[in-house]
Amino acid sequence: MKGNIVVGQSGGPTAVINSSVAGVYAAAKKLGVKKVYGMVHGIQGFLQDNLCDLDEYLADETGIELLKRTPSAFLGSCRFKMPKIEGHEEVYEKVFEIMEKHDIECLFYAGGNDSMDTVKMLSDYAAAHNKPQRFMGVPKTIDNDLPITDHCPGYGSAAKYIAASLKEVIRDNESFGVEKPTVCIVEIMGRNAGWLTAAAALAKGEDCSGVDAIYLPEKTFDVDAFMQKVKHLGETKSSVVIAVSEGIKIADGRYVCELANENVAVDAFGHKQMSGTAAYLAAEAAKLTGLKTRAIEFSTLQRAATHLASLTDINEAFQVGHDAVLAAEEGKTGMMITLNRNGDDPYQCGTSAYDIHAIANVERAVPDEWITEDGCGLNEGYEKYARPLIMGELQPLFVNGLPRHLVRKK
Amino acid sequence: MKGNIVVGQSGGPTAVINSSVAGVYAAAKKLGVKKVYGMVHGIQGFLQDNLCDLDEYLADETGIELLKRTPSAFLGSCRFKMPKIEGHEEVYEKVFEIMEKHDIECLFYAGGNDSMDTVKMLSDYAAAHNKPQRFMGVPKTIDNDLPITDHCPGYGSAAKYIAASLKEVIRDNESFGVEKPTVCIVEIMGRNAGWLTAAAALAKGEDCSGVDAIYLPEKTFDVDAFMQKVKHLGETKSSVVIAVSEGIKIADGRYVCELANENVAVDAFGHKQMSGTAAYLAAEAAKLTGLKTRAIEFSTLQRAATHLASLTDINEAFQVGHDAVLAAEEGKTGMMITLNRNGDDPYQCGTSAYDIHAIANVERAVPDEWITEDGCGLNEGYEKYARPLIMGELQPLFVNGLPRHLVRKK
Repeated sequence: MKGNIVVGQSGGPTAVINSSVAGVYAAAKKLGVKKVYGMVHGIQGFLQDNLCDLDEYLADETGIELLKRTPSAFLGSCRFKMPKIEGHEEVYEKVFEIMEKHDIECLFYAGGNDSMDTVKMLSDYAAAHNKPQRFMGVPKTIDNDLPITDHCPGYGSAAKYIAASLKEVIRDNESFGVEKPTVCIVEIMGRNAGWLTAAAALAKGEDCSGVDAIYLPEKTFDVDAFMQKVKHLGETKSSVVIAVSEGIKIADGRYVCELANENVAVDAFGHKQMSGTAAYLAAEAAKLTGLKTRAIEFSTLQRAATHLASLTDINEAFQVGHDAVLAAEEGKTGMMITLNRNGDDPYQCGTSAYDIHAIANVERAVPDEWITEDGCGLNEGYEKYARPLIMGELQPLFVNGLPRHLVRKK
Repeated sequence: MKGNIVVGQSGGPTAVINSSVAGVYAAAKKLGVKKVYGMVHGIQGFLQDNLCDLDEYLADETGIELLKRTPSAFLGSCRFKMPKIEGHEEVYEKVFEIMEKHDIECLFYAGGNDSMDTVKMLSDYAAAHNKPQRFMGVPKTIDNDLPITDHCPGYGSAAKYIAASLKEVIRDNESFGVEKPTVCIVEIMGRNAGWLTAAAALAKGEDCSGVDAIYLPEKTFDVDAFMQKVKHLGETKSSVVIAVSEGIKIADGRYVCELANENVAVDAFGHKQMSGTAAYLAAEAAKLTGLKTRAIEFSTLQRAATHLASLTDINEAFQVGHDAVLAAEEGKTGMMITLNRNGDDPYQCGTSAYDIHAIANVERAVPDEWITEDGCGLNEGYEKYARPLIMGELQPLFVNGLPRHLVRKK
């Protein structure tokens, strides 16, 4: 590559999105790229020419190691939706103007479905206007709902956090076994796809009986059937822990969290801001069964707990960033790097570049064949798929008793 | 010691309460005690003669190491309040009958204020009835509210989890800096004492600007002043994270969580079950300021996250269990082991045994001189006190990608 490059982060952060930035930087430097810029706050910041020079942070190898251990988007993120090209050409021209100003040959964008749409729009615009600049997508989402790729960097670490935390919650809940059970309902992220909630299944093992039921948004949620289940579990078990997705919906299409609160807020992409599903179900279950109930929301920690990240995930996040640069070097554009599983035992995964048009705005759900017949569990198909993704650890650098992070200068 | 001993766990679990059981076991075995029994579900299980033999789990050194890495109460816990002696002599006689049956010379009980009351009642009964059995308290509470002792095992690990998780939450919240800030309100445990919430102050450091305000139950909470503060922060900062204790109360004595829900449930000790403080404040703040708000409850994970336990805390939890056995060997009874700080730099801590009557049912609050003048922060006095308690880590044993725990056979 003769010119410079820029890398940006977009959408909800993950525990390992910074490893992708590290991967982009490392590959570019190996190829002799002069400047690797970071967009400050994604494409939104880029449009304001808000860039930083990554040499400042990563030229030293300890910088890269610290970045891998840093949660959230090191460069800052955004939830900016590129407007339709027609009638908004000036926004697109602005992107190219800033790219030209800094001699940027290729733009790398790490994100999920919405962010891949940005890559698609920019590469479509470049093609239509004979612009030489190239655009590559780097997959990132705890939601694991991008199509084509076997899985998404960010998912493995979120799944590891969810399963490890659930083991701790289950142990806590089991400790009071003498009286009537406490029913603990844990709310897990995932607006439309149940991948994160499915990770609750991984808690089960030789040392843990696992959760008692798992409710995914892939299946219509029946409040009455749920309450019957809770009642039955409360009568037969000394501890009950249930995992529910924030995105579960009843038959008429309303989210369960809307049953408690009709005025659910909406973000820039028109997505409803979920919260309160477990609290609603716990309150209703307490009324109905007389049992003590507790609602837990894993909330932001699911996507931010880099202290418990999966090493497999960190390495793959690095790899997709790295390989996006190699693909761009070959002249590719308008593509996203996918992870392709070559084997389960031992687990092996390679990458390739795939047309962004097949990926942007498409959401992949948990396959029906991995959901148990009663609709509230996962079978060994899911276990075989997900277990390798949570393997391995990268010990944080502890300073003054806490994990140390790399910080951008303001 | 000629006879056997028994150890029990009581009240809310901590990340390190099992290290105290390990300490009791290790000291007893060094002294040649034949049988070290565990009470299954505390004094409540003991009254039903529900015991286990700890040799079964801990005779092997790997068992002790695994126990140290196991969250929640390995033996099972209870929230059983010993009845008044007068009119309930049969309950007390039952305890001594079971002790005699198993040739148990000394009973060790790990717990907080309520559990120390059990130790006091039993040792008082023994004294009044010339019983030879001895009773020793082993301090344990994430709340850190026991008097006399410098701090309580369990607190350091909870504080480490809170500070480390807040660093991750702050990073996440900061990542969207371009638009108006999201105001994130984090609810932390602590019914009457603000020790756990105070730990939010430890998040601040070279790589983290820390939380923007900390509200402890030690200070009367003023809803209007809080809203003004949120409004001001929202206008001047690009990210706002505030820590509130679940136990904050307004001037008329009502808990903030009661403002949202009048029917707060009550446990066996008459303590209200808190929850919903952050959710209430976040909803009100959103209405008042128009800002996006988010409520996070750290919930059960504060006391269960052994995967991020403080090594200092693990070692001290072990030490108080260990030294309780040495004190009993010297003939002591009706006492609790306290931690006595001998120095801050380097941090050093020893133990002694203290009369249980001065400890049971007494709650220690955060000293006023450590709270900043505006009432919503902690000063360097607290930092100096708390920082040593979160130092050090003990790497979990990861199996299949998750921390492995020791399990009692059913």
